[in-house]
Amino acid sequence: MAAWGARLAGVRGVLLDISGVLYDSGEGGGKPIAGSVDAVARLKRSGLKVRFCTNESQKSRSRLVGELRSLGFNIHEGEVTAPPPAACQLLKERGLRPHLLVHDEVRSEFDQVDTSDPNCVVIADAGEGFSYQNMNKAFQVLMGLDTPVLISLGQGRYYKVTSGLMLDVGGYMKALEYACGVEAEVVGKPSPEFFKSALQEMGVEACQEKIKRMKR
Amino acid sequence: MAAWGARLAGVRGVLLDISGVLYDSGEGGGKPIAGSVDAVARLKRSGLKVRFCTNESQKSRSRLVGELRSLGFNIHEGEVTAPPPAACQLLKERGLRPHLLVHDEVRSEFDQVDTSDPNCVVIADAGEGFSYQNMNKAFQVLMGLDTPVLISLGQGRYYKVTSGLMLDVGGYMKALEYACGVEAEVVGKPSPEFFKSALQEMGVEACQEKIKRMKR
Repeated sequence: MAAWGARLAGVRGVLLDISGVLYDSGEGGGKPIAGSVDAVARLKRSGLKVRFCTNESQKSRSRLVGELRSLGFNIHEGEVTAPPPAACQLLKERGLRPHLLVHDEVRSEFDQVDTSDPNCVVIADAGEGFSYQNMNKAFQVLMGLDTPVLISLGQGRYYKVTSGLMLDVGGYMKALEYACGVEAEVVGKPSPEFFKSALQEMGVEACQEKIKRMKR
Repeated sequence: MAAWGARLAGVRGVLLDISGVLYDSGEGGGKPIAGSVDAVARLKRSGLKVRFCTNESQKSRSRLVGELRSLGFNIHEGEVTAPPPAACQLLKERGLRPHLLVHDEVRSEFDQVDTSDPNCVVIADAGEGFSYQNMNKAFQVLMGLDTPVLISLGQGRYYKVTSGLMLDVGGYMKALEYACGVEAEVVGKPSPEFFKSALQEMGVEACQEKIKRMKR
């Protein structure tokens, strides 16, 4: 513990991933990973700032947080950084009107965004929504644009649920990139902007020096 | 015409693509591209050997040829080189037992192949068969193999039907490559082996010198 104490000296905040780190999602709300409920509680008691940073884009934040709370986690919606709000911000800043290929659960996160006459495509982990018909529609929208813009909420290869491994949005992003000859802009991890916005919301700054020291 | 005559001196055979070259597929059997029915007839009358080389993998060869004949093309099933028979040959040679993610129409082309206890995945243009569930199953089969083998019948980005552009198998191949960290083996164009087998079936040999001369 002493070694860790020294390593963590000066650390002011902790960003925690959720899926595959705190819990494995799945039927019935998933299950916590051993020790994680207690670890979050101890971090919060320690006085460190704690924020949750996830690429989860199949569920609204309120549902995700509800599930985690029912599993015993001390977590609130305002503590979660997730791709949809970051994407909405980006869309507004650039005057983009998305065609949405997202899970029905998270569609409401885009309620304030103009989706008429689309001039870009936003994809997220749509799960069963990744039908051929829906993929083809997104493809056709992109091919109809003079300057195709593809925004992907995360680029995960797969994720784990209690019943096994599941294809994540990354493969579908690659499919559209290849078919349309475009390169997607990724909102979410591992984009540095995404981590920075999480830090900003937490009120701490990234410190390269600290990272170097921790690596030793 | 004289210039063409000189350029073609010594040419003994012609390989013709089908979709997007002879006809655009679509509802009601598609429609011929202007001049193509006559061009095939003239080539055949010319004494040149003619063979058809397609990546079509949504239809059995018999159905494809039936559609083309009803559009007026002089074509027979034995004149068509298509990926499924080439894939069957490769699977047998290497003792591979495929999990098939293919269109129901072409499943029968794999009737003679052992598909029990799969040790590879074969994907082709499955159209509506590219559901999330089917893609995830193919992904899980690959992830369960010590040495994942992914065979793709073609790697087209998209193709044209009378109603517009449609996503082809290539994007889905890229999706599985990315998710599983594998590189697919492509059977069909543009694989040199595929063209060579078409030439062999036609009884002519490739001649690099000729190609250089034609490029001038």
